[in-house]
Amino acid sequence: MAVYTEVPDDALAAFVADYDIGTLTSCKGIAEGVENSNYLLTTDCGRYILTLYEKRVAKGDLPFFLGLMEHLAAAGLSCPTPLRDRHGAMLRDLAGRPAALVTFLEGLSLKRPQVRHCAGLGVALATLHRAGSGFAMRRPNSLALTGWRDLAAKLGGDADQVSPGLHNLIADELTLLDARWPRDLPAGIIHADLFPNNVFFMGDRLSGLIDFYFACNDFLAYDVAICLCAWCFEDDGSFNITKGQGLLTAYAAARPMSPAELAALPLLARGAALRFLLTRAYDWLHTPQSALVKRLDPNEYVRKLRFLQKVSHVRELGLDVAS
Amino acid sequence: MAVYTEVPDDALAAFVADYDIGTLTSCKGIAEGVENSNYLLTTDCGRYILTLYEKRVAKGDLPFFLGLMEHLAAAGLSCPTPLRDRHGAMLRDLAGRPAALVTFLEGLSLKRPQVRHCAGLGVALATLHRAGSGFAMRRPNSLALTGWRDLAAKLGGDADQVSPGLHNLIADELTLLDARWPRDLPAGIIHADLFPNNVFFMGDRLSGLIDFYFACNDFLAYDVAICLCAWCFEDDGSFNITKGQGLLTAYAAARPMSPAELAALPLLARGAALRFLLTRAYDWLHTPQSALVKRLDPNEYVRKLRFLQKVSHVRELGLDVAS
Repeated sequence: MAVYTEVPDDALAAFVADYDIGTLTSCKGIAEGVENSNYLLTTDCGRYILTLYEKRVAKGDLPFFLGLMEHLAAAGLSCPTPLRDRHGAMLRDLAGRPAALVTFLEGLSLKRPQVRHCAGLGVALATLHRAGSGFAMRRPNSLALTGWRDLAAKLGGDADQVSPGLHNLIADELTLLDARWPRDLPAGIIHADLFPNNVFFMGDRLSGLIDFYFACNDFLAYDVAICLCAWCFEDDGSFNITKGQGLLTAYAAARPMSPAELAALPLLARGAALRFLLTRAYDWLHTPQSALVKRLDPNEYVRKLRFLQKVSHVRELGLDVAS
Repeated sequence: MAVYTEVPDDALAAFVADYDIGTLTSCKGIAEGVENSNYLLTTDCGRYILTLYEKRVAKGDLPFFLGLMEHLAAAGLSCPTPLRDRHGAMLRDLAGRPAALVTFLEGLSLKRPQVRHCAGLGVALATLHRAGSGFAMRRPNSLALTGWRDLAAKLGGDADQVSPGLHNLIADELTLLDARWPRDLPAGIIHADLFPNNVFFMGDRLSGLIDFYFACNDFLAYDVAICLCAWCFEDDGSFNITKGQGLLTAYAAARPMSPAELAALPLLARGAALRFLLTRAYDWLHTPQSALVKRLDPNEYVRKLRFLQKVSHVRELGLDVAS
């Protein structure tokens, strides 16, 4: 959380001077993202976000992430755009960390999105998927089936410390997903972490997407499945099908889904639920219990997974399709 | 550090609507101050800081702090000004916390102030002391001699865990300060925590002061002594007399000091060093050792105190006075 690395006065001034952005008038460490150090810079020309990449982000992936944001912005998606310095570089070094400067995106992320926000999300997700086509770089999804198996193995029997029976639940689910996971759905660039904190709104209008540091190549419909998990459940664990309807209808209108994608969506959603269940369970067991680190509850995803295990048709998720 | 309390979407919108500040366009949790939750709000009218007061700030003191900032700003000091809501209130309740909205102050705090910044500090401190006169409310300094004795008693022999011999050093220093502490110097509103992180600069020009949550009534010269401790030592523990000269000369030109104040300054500086030594030692022993909480080294103030114990005349701190 929030600002690990302090930037020396002189280093910051020299860094800013290497861009055509005017004179620095303020610099605030902000609590955005959990993985990196982020500063909101204001100059007499505008506002910018300075990110110093901490060790959880692989340095080798940064050209992919920054190139992708530049590509998506150029293709019309509202998202932060990396600035190039006077030498044309997007990726710099600052205070011993890889660093980049991106444009500031207006809007607020919602803690509790409502039904009326889900259609905007569907449109933005489809826009992202269409804008991603033509991006030349590739990054495999390290948190796909193989990654889940690795995480499950690392967890082992400790999973039962999170919730009794979790070890078996994970093992059974992995076996099923392994056997049934689709092999040839439409694929491309996915965001892979499009939770409400990564989506900005101005009033009820979606103003843009941020945080592309899990972006990768995978099935486009899997990204839809992640959004179903992240946006369409209520705090009590119930699935809000009206939210699902808002998301899926808007998405499918902007990027029509093939019959194979529609048929696979319930299973992809189970995979998405398992993915977040696994990383949350791992972090739960490996993050020191401190008031300052907010650990996300893995059991939220146990409940979501148990619901999704009972879903057999995309209609149960909110999409009204001809059968 | 940085944002303890999350504000629900609806509560934030309702709060902002109670002020005449336009429509909210962004809200970022910022890493400013250690005691409270701070958000940088942007609306179509400007930028503001929203502070939610956490438990370390006594709720009963908030009218003093907010009233003081309003008074100081009206008297010409560049500092955040509390906004009044549509009902005239400066202090509100938000997400179960006392909350206030203040104007945004441009500028950057310096991690390593240079000689050229110390004169600006002296002028601003004198401006604060002059502006504070006429403020009707009073707040005793809870971290004065009595408070130091209480802290020293709480530390007890544990002080030696911070540094061998510290327990005796503190006891001897307290005895000496108790005997020699002045009783009748010019007094008024002091900032009491004017460290570099609470002073903003635009380039080399001081743009304002923030964080008045230790402000209280005490000897004005004691505030000067705190600044000497906080601004004029180098990382290796050496006292930079050129910095002292910059600070003291500029301060004394803007608010001439009496002979009694000048004579007392070395002793007041010892008191200031002991004050920060005590709170840092206490926090050092009572803050869990975590990568995310930055504990400040008490031994920095042991070194400063040992230097100040050898100072007998304000000339040794940088002020050229006729003897």
